[in-house]
Amino acid sequence: MENRQLEELGQQLRVDAVRAADAAQSGHPTSSMSAADLGAVLLAHHLRYDFDRPDHPGNDRLILSKGHASPLLYALYRAAGVIDDDELLTFRQDGSPLEGHPTPRLPWVDVATGSLGQGLPIGVGMALAGQRLDRLPYRVWVLCGDSEMAEGSIWEAVEHAAYERLDRLTLIVDVNRLGQRGPTREGWDLDAYARRLGAFGWHTIEIDGHDVAAIDAAYQEATAAEDRPTAVIARTHKGRGVAEVDDQEGFHGRPLPHPERAIEELGGVRSIRVDVARPPDPVLTTTAHAAGEIAAPRYRVGGETATRDAFGAALAALGSVRGDVVAVDGEVGDSTRTAAFAKAHPDRYFECYIAEQQLVAAAVGMRARGYLPFAATFAAFLTRAHDFIRMAAVSEAGIQLCGSHAGVAIGQDGPSQMGLEDIAMMRTVHGSTVLYPCDANQTARLVQHMAQLPGIGYLRTSRGAMPVLYGPDEDFPVGGCRVLRSSAADRVTVIGAGVTVHEALKAADLLAAESIWIRVIDLYSVKPVDAETLQEAADATDCLVTVEDHRPEGGIGDAVAEAFADGRPQPRLVRLAVRTMPASATPGQQLHHAGIDAESIAAAVRLLVGEVVVA
Amino acid sequence: MENRQLEELGQQLRVDAVRAADAAQSGHPTSSMSAADLGAVLLAHHLRYDFDRPDHPGNDRLILSKGHASPLLYALYRAAGVIDDDELLTFRQDGSPLEGHPTPRLPWVDVATGSLGQGLPIGVGMALAGQRLDRLPYRVWVLCGDSEMAEGSIWEAVEHAAYERLDRLTLIVDVNRLGQRGPTREGWDLDAYARRLGAFGWHTIEIDGHDVAAIDAAYQEATAAEDRPTAVIARTHKGRGVAEVDDQEGFHGRPLPHPERAIEELGGVRSIRVDVARPPDPVLTTTAHAAGEIAAPRYRVGGETATRDAFGAALAALGSVRGDVVAVDGEVGDSTRTAAFAKAHPDRYFECYIAEQQLVAAAVGMRARGYLPFAATFAAFLTRAHDFIRMAAVSEAGIQLCGSHAGVAIGQDGPSQMGLEDIAMMRTVHGSTVLYPCDANQTARLVQHMAQLPGIGYLRTSRGAMPVLYGPDEDFPVGGCRVLRSSAADRVTVIGAGVTVHEALKAADLLAAESIWIRVIDLYSVKPVDAETLQEAADATDCLVTVEDHRPEGGIGDAVAEAFADGRPQPRLVRLAVRTMPASATPGQQLHHAGIDAESIAAAVRLLVGEVVVA
Repeated sequence: MENRQLEELGQQLRVDAVRAADAAQSGHPTSSMSAADLGAVLLAHHLRYDFDRPDHPGNDRLILSKGHASPLLYALYRAAGVIDDDELLTFRQDGSPLEGHPTPRLPWVDVATGSLGQGLPIGVGMALAGQRLDRLPYRVWVLCGDSEMAEGSIWEAVEHAAYERLDRLTLIVDVNRLGQRGPTREGWDLDAYARRLGAFGWHTIEIDGHDVAAIDAAYQEATAAEDRPTAVIARTHKGRGVAEVDDQEGFHGRPLPHPERAIEELGGVRSIRVDVARPPDPVLTTTAHAAGEIAAPRYRVGGETATRDAFGAALAALGSVRGDVVAVDGEVGDSTRTAAFAKAHPDRYFECYIAEQQLVAAAVGMRARGYLPFAATFAAFLTRAHDFIRMAAVSEAGIQLCGSHAGVAIGQDGPSQMGLEDIAMMRTVHGSTVLYPCDANQTARLVQHMAQLPGIGYLRTSRGAMPVLYGPDEDFPVGGCRVLRSSAADRVTVIGAGVTVHEALKAADLLAAESIWIRVIDLYSVKPVDAETLQEAADATDCLVTVEDHRPEGGIGDAVAEAFADGRPQPRLVRLAVRTMPASATPGQQLHHAGIDAESIAAAVRLLVGEVVVA
Repeated sequence: MENRQLEELGQQLRVDAVRAADAAQSGHPTSSMSAADLGAVLLAHHLRYDFDRPDHPGNDRLILSKGHASPLLYALYRAAGVIDDDELLTFRQDGSPLEGHPTPRLPWVDVATGSLGQGLPIGVGMALAGQRLDRLPYRVWVLCGDSEMAEGSIWEAVEHAAYERLDRLTLIVDVNRLGQRGPTREGWDLDAYARRLGAFGWHTIEIDGHDVAAIDAAYQEATAAEDRPTAVIARTHKGRGVAEVDDQEGFHGRPLPHPERAIEELGGVRSIRVDVARPPDPVLTTTAHAAGEIAAPRYRVGGETATRDAFGAALAALGSVRGDVVAVDGEVGDSTRTAAFAKAHPDRYFECYIAEQQLVAAAVGMRARGYLPFAATFAAFLTRAHDFIRMAAVSEAGIQLCGSHAGVAIGQDGPSQMGLEDIAMMRTVHGSTVLYPCDANQTARLVQHMAQLPGIGYLRTSRGAMPVLYGPDEDFPVGGCRVLRSSAADRVTVIGAGVTVHEALKAADLLAAESIWIRVIDLYSVKPVDAETLQEAADATDCLVTVEDHRPEGGIGDAVAEAFADGRPQPRLVRLAVRTMPASATPGQQLHHAGIDAESIAAAVRLLVGEVVVA
């Protein structure tokens, strides 16, 4: 296209953004207008994308990190001919896939955006997949706002991208100088962004973001850059092209006050159609999925192994039969035991250093490229990536997470290192599965099941060695549980998971010596929970006691309670959980102080049984 | 001290770190040894701190961001004469305040560390307090490891500190080039750190971190720097001074293999006592707490106001009578309505831009300096700061948080902007209080109560206007609830909070027309929950139905269930919650699609009542 046509296309995108927001009576037209020329040149001259085949492996990826500028994205789709005028005007309406912020309900959207600062880290994940896994020359284009450059996650990604020399990653920064509530910190100081990005090793280009020739040249330069990612830092006007709102405060996130006049000022409605360049048919080099049984290690019943050890070994074994499995580490692979995967499959191991947001974002990006990432760090530090996990659910990205060092049982390191809130966080994630093994063979089997999960999976592992209870050929279906002790004389059911299963078994022995019989359930699947078996236990015994190395809120106690939240008569419930702030102590002391060790369980049961007798 | 003495002191700190870890048989001596000289010079020549008066307002603050190097901190305390040899050797033992990672159980520790990348953002909060609130010349010293420089939160803080010209903030980076599992990205490339920090506007000094004269000069230069923060970037050896571990991989987080030989190599046990300089007696200029009644706005019953509006107004009013109240914004003050506070009290309003980790960290830092910060952003985006909130609880920092734009009721913006997991996150925080008002007058009163909370408080506010139900003089104690409809004929109790209270009332009207009577409870205090009133409702009606604009896990349904987790016979429970992934739609459509609007509630009650009749 000639520059004049590119400018026309830019105006069309603006008009369409204004129209969409006007039809919706909400949305962010001014944030779309600033980036319209940046989008127009990208679509017309640089993006290689087969809109008929969004799953074409050679397609470039476009991530609108400033997701609130969705009207621009949808205007680009109209220009590409994949949505029509009627659909454009369904923006933000009930049932329309043209949501307020983009989601994968549209086939051309790989990942949901709208929580700022996530597009670049996810783009890093995609570019890593392109460079190291797909080995295809597709480019990843990320369009960011300037406000979101304040997010720390951006700088995790900036460092990572430069370190990995992701030269097929281009960041476009739409520096319109106005945030939601007023000017940004840096205003139009493009140098400020360039200095910072440059200091991390990026190639940077500063341009006038409304000069289509300059934009074109910058994208060309970005495409040619080798060995490092490029940032195109563009000075733009929010609301560009409509005098009433052009570079004015007070017009964020609302339709234009006079849309008809604005459309006229922008030159009226156009219907320029861009024939977007398609990618070359790629030579696929992706590792095929090897067939065969997974040769996970087998652990001898009665031995002692930490579930984190079993996780690492099982993941490595899984990787041997599935070429799509990748592991992502937050510089704790020696602790989470993803190091075992690194040793077996170094080409599919991604080190994110201590940057948990990038850790999860890398997994999301690789998942969007068809891989099955397992990302692992301490359970406590997964909270650092909570917003990324939440958004991964919106992105329908079935990443698998492992949080190690669960609970007070880690011992001396103290509360900063203890995962005590992770089950609550992960249960709440939409469509998630939460697994918490107590044994090495169970862990191995659950890792295999995680590879089949449709949504986000979470495995909670423990630091210390624990007895192996189950044989290596036993299965542990997701949504199941195991009844470990059961008799007709059971008075109380004790439900544990992970370390508390072993404490419950010890308590059962203590109580058996007093002729008090309890049922013991291993609730290895915390979500979904085995409501049927819990109901049987509720029918057979007087009370269910949950015991968990986790805060009392949101964990196993809540999961069990939820199983009875269907209007049926409920069993009596008691929950033992970590209600204090732990300090340093040995694992055994920790469990005792928290009141979740065998002695505490036995004491609780004695009390409950006593009450029953009195009643 | 002469350089020779400083070197001796450094060796003493090393020896003590080795001894402490050996006594504990765990801990991080090598990470302590790299920073020993940096610590020695700071304590001997630059820190101004009255160890007898940790609350002295003029004290410098020292934050050990690399909290795993706690043996170094405790060795410094021994050198300062505030702990003795016996206490040093209680390191990591049950009952000792010398925990694996520092916590405020020690009077000289302001905030807990151990989750990396948090010390600098919290230090920014303290330095902001010093500069803008206390107006005292104390310095904030933050000692970071090099690994943690990969955390995005560090760069949020770096930008913030430079922008605010925090020249009394000094970052010391202990570049020992070895992380937990191997070399860091940058190794000993001090320039890499200096370039980045410099690009953000910091003054940087690169030194040999074992040259006490160079360290001394660098601290001197940092102290003299004006208008910008200073980073002292120090090349060090992990395990410095003991050949077996000096700059060697594989010795992270474990005691030295041959402690006695190491101590000998380090020159043996010493007992150098540092007479730490005390700060000058400051001229206190802190705003006194004004007395008087809080003149919160009063809302007319029957009117309509959004709870976020009421929050902003109430916070501004609170600020008028309490000079210690500050507000912290994540560039959404126009949406959360902290803008009202900004207008009334601009000197106590802190803009963090879109950097939610820094938002919460600033609050923690100011809380540690005695202020009462209210930090607000969208409820959804508070998940970005989950790890900081978790650690704030370990720090015993009673910060107050407000999350706006709760639930699907926000309407068209879609799931990325909806707080649907926030109650679960906040309930799980140790010692937290979770409040969720449905009405403007209630909001105003709850904000007043938040100012009295001992721990972390959370207020969940709503975007849209809602009817005012309560008079302006009614009180809403924390831990209470309100029974809004009640009669002897009640069949079912419907429990809502926020927007669902209004839906429940509408459902009650619909059902009353069919002569089905329900009790309606406004559960504005989600944690602690009013177990007594819930028990009364359970006794009086056949079933409790919770209705919440939140995920089914960890929210109001779980909070109500927990009230019955004491072994008593339980009521029948049903929970209505957001079980789907919302898209764009109007608020009314959203509530309907999620099954939490009046119609859905009425339908659920009819079903339950029908079942009861059949039974």
